[in-house]
Amino acid sequence: MKKAGILLASLSVFALTHSAAYAESDLLSEARDTFKPIPHAVPSLPDNPVTQEKIELGRMLFFDPRISRSGLLSCNTCHNLGMGGDDNLETSIGHGWQKGPRNAPTVLNAIFNTAQFWDGRAADLKAQAKGPVQAGVEMANTPARVEETLKSMPEYVGRFERAFPDNGEAVSFDKMARAIEAYEATLITPASKFDLFLEGNEAALNDQEKEGLALFMDTGCSSCHGGVNLGGEGYYPFGVVEKPGAEILPAEDKGRFAVTKTADEEYVFRAAPLRNIALTAPYFHSGKVWELKQAVGIMAASQLGAELSNDQVEAITAFLHTLTGERPDVEYPILPISTSTTPKPELMQPMKQ
Amino acid sequence: MKKAGILLASLSVFALTHSAAYAESDLLSEARDTFKPIPHAVPSLPDNPVTQEKIELGRMLFFDPRISRSGLLSCNTCHNLGMGGDDNLETSIGHGWQKGPRNAPTVLNAIFNTAQFWDGRAADLKAQAKGPVQAGVEMANTPARVEETLKSMPEYVGRFERAFPDNGEAVSFDKMARAIEAYEATLITPASKFDLFLEGNEAALNDQEKEGLALFMDTGCSSCHGGVNLGGEGYYPFGVVEKPGAEILPAEDKGRFAVTKTADEEYVFRAAPLRNIALTAPYFHSGKVWELKQAVGIMAASQLGAELSNDQVEAITAFLHTLTGERPDVEYPILPISTSTTPKPELMQPMKQ
Repeated sequence: MKKAGILLASLSVFALTHSAAYAESDLLSEARDTFKPIPHAVPSLPDNPVTQEKIELGRMLFFDPRISRSGLLSCNTCHNLGMGGDDNLETSIGHGWQKGPRNAPTVLNAIFNTAQFWDGRAADLKAQAKGPVQAGVEMANTPARVEETLKSMPEYVGRFERAFPDNGEAVSFDKMARAIEAYEATLITPASKFDLFLEGNEAALNDQEKEGLALFMDTGCSSCHGGVNLGGEGYYPFGVVEKPGAEILPAEDKGRFAVTKTADEEYVFRAAPLRNIALTAPYFHSGKVWELKQAVGIMAASQLGAELSNDQVEAITAFLHTLTGERPDVEYPILPISTSTTPKPELMQPMKQ
Repeated sequence: MKKAGILLASLSVFALTHSAAYAESDLLSEARDTFKPIPHAVPSLPDNPVTQEKIELGRMLFFDPRISRSGLLSCNTCHNLGMGGDDNLETSIGHGWQKGPRNAPTVLNAIFNTAQFWDGRAADLKAQAKGPVQAGVEMANTPARVEETLKSMPEYVGRFERAFPDNGEAVSFDKMARAIEAYEATLITPASKFDLFLEGNEAALNDQEKEGLALFMDTGCSSCHGGVNLGGEGYYPFGVVEKPGAEILPAEDKGRFAVTKTADEEYVFRAAPLRNIALTAPYFHSGKVWELKQAVGIMAASQLGAELSNDQVEAITAFLHTLTGERPDVEYPILPISTSTTPKPELMQPMKQ
């Protein structure tokens, strides 16, 4: 137990040269102002009611490799629910073994992000779900071909009808994305040690983890990495204070600039959500850093100009490990069987139209 | 219901010019002499006791993409338990998007096959499991690298210790294969309509399916496609009577000849097991035929010299659909997390030693 000390309420950026000392309840109080626990219940989606039928359909679609042109890649290939909701690769492998441009973000708790992708180019998960399906470097498919595939299997048609009962044509690309979003709303990981702490069980964190939490807030990490997901809410230049090397921040990927074409958004990326961060190495949009400790040091220097001691980095890293929650049980779905009208797998890249 | 007729007990090869007519009980009796139902309990393996610890470890290994050099491909990639225990591709895609030489056989009920692979080059499933992991065109890994990977994760080490309690070094490539074999022993599909029939419920098959069963036996199909798995027990030349075209039987793949180097084993392949055949298109080792009906016609002509009427082909196809059993419930495993000593994914083909 640490003795009571001065509450550093400011979230401004500065380098700490000694451990922050907190009264327990002050630490909890400041943490509650900054973060929110993962809820235990599936969140509701204002424009996409989450029903059991939709969840089950979405689970099938999430695992169905026939959503991809090759018939080989499913959402789960890059967002593996047996791992950290990602693929643990630097950047993902897609159609034709092409190497994607950025590290795959975790799907776990993605429902709580304000915007999706590293550059926030999708407004929500149903918009996100349409992206990789069509990206030439990922699934290389088209909405029309996906619809043809799904319509060729009577079981899918029936499931779409039940998931979207009063809503025009049974099967559509848009409804596919809505069903996947509904399933993804169930992929939340409550009950991490940090959640128990936020919920009032202060003994859930040990002294080092509490010190890390205090440093995380006082050094300024939580300015960008706050809220439910400790990130995923806003966009910031990578290298506010000092740009990391080209190995970690490749010059050719200008981040949000590609979406907004605004000069001051060059090298601007979404602050990565840090939930389950211990499960999702390698780190950063480039996936070039494999050690969480190293990532913490790089962030402190490049974003905050903070020189942390080894003990401080260790403490923040220990705190980040408390963000690992309980991953959802996943029943692997039995998929409908292809029929004679199901488009055949196409392994080559389609010709440009 | 068909009226009683002559029991054609011989399994020799001849062309039927009319539907066989059977007494129900004679049909069942002949079927019981030729086939066996899928058991409801997990079979025991004489040299690899199936324990719950081994099954759970094997399930994790089956779904773990880090068994492959790339970190992308798992056993389940090509033997997808949500589909027919295969990948529904002509031939599988492996490391570097290489196209494998042959159609992936289903893992469902594979435990009942006498030999594995299309050419029988593995004696059992634990020998089979070592093949794709090392094949350059599949997972492109090495036993040493797999062992290094598994040993880098304390949870795996503990699980190996519990699965193999009195047996030298905790983690080994051989034990990995044994655990996967134990898990695969659970991947059986009892309670198909045909199993219900074999178990005595003659009403489980309708008239057309019964006619198909009679034709299947009397035309000679069951000479090669008998036993529990209706195949998977022996090796036969593809094209006993008449070789199919090079599109279906490519000249360069000489089948079992590559294993035995015996001239009369050119184009000899294992008779495919037909359990769940309606789920595992496309067909043949080349994967060139997508319609089950077409496959039946090709087999009858090439193997038996039989010219079947359309109704007869339809009846046999209807019978083959009764071989679809109840697929096992699969809980998707939560995998151990990589550590700093876990070998990093390698996406390029390794240099030849």
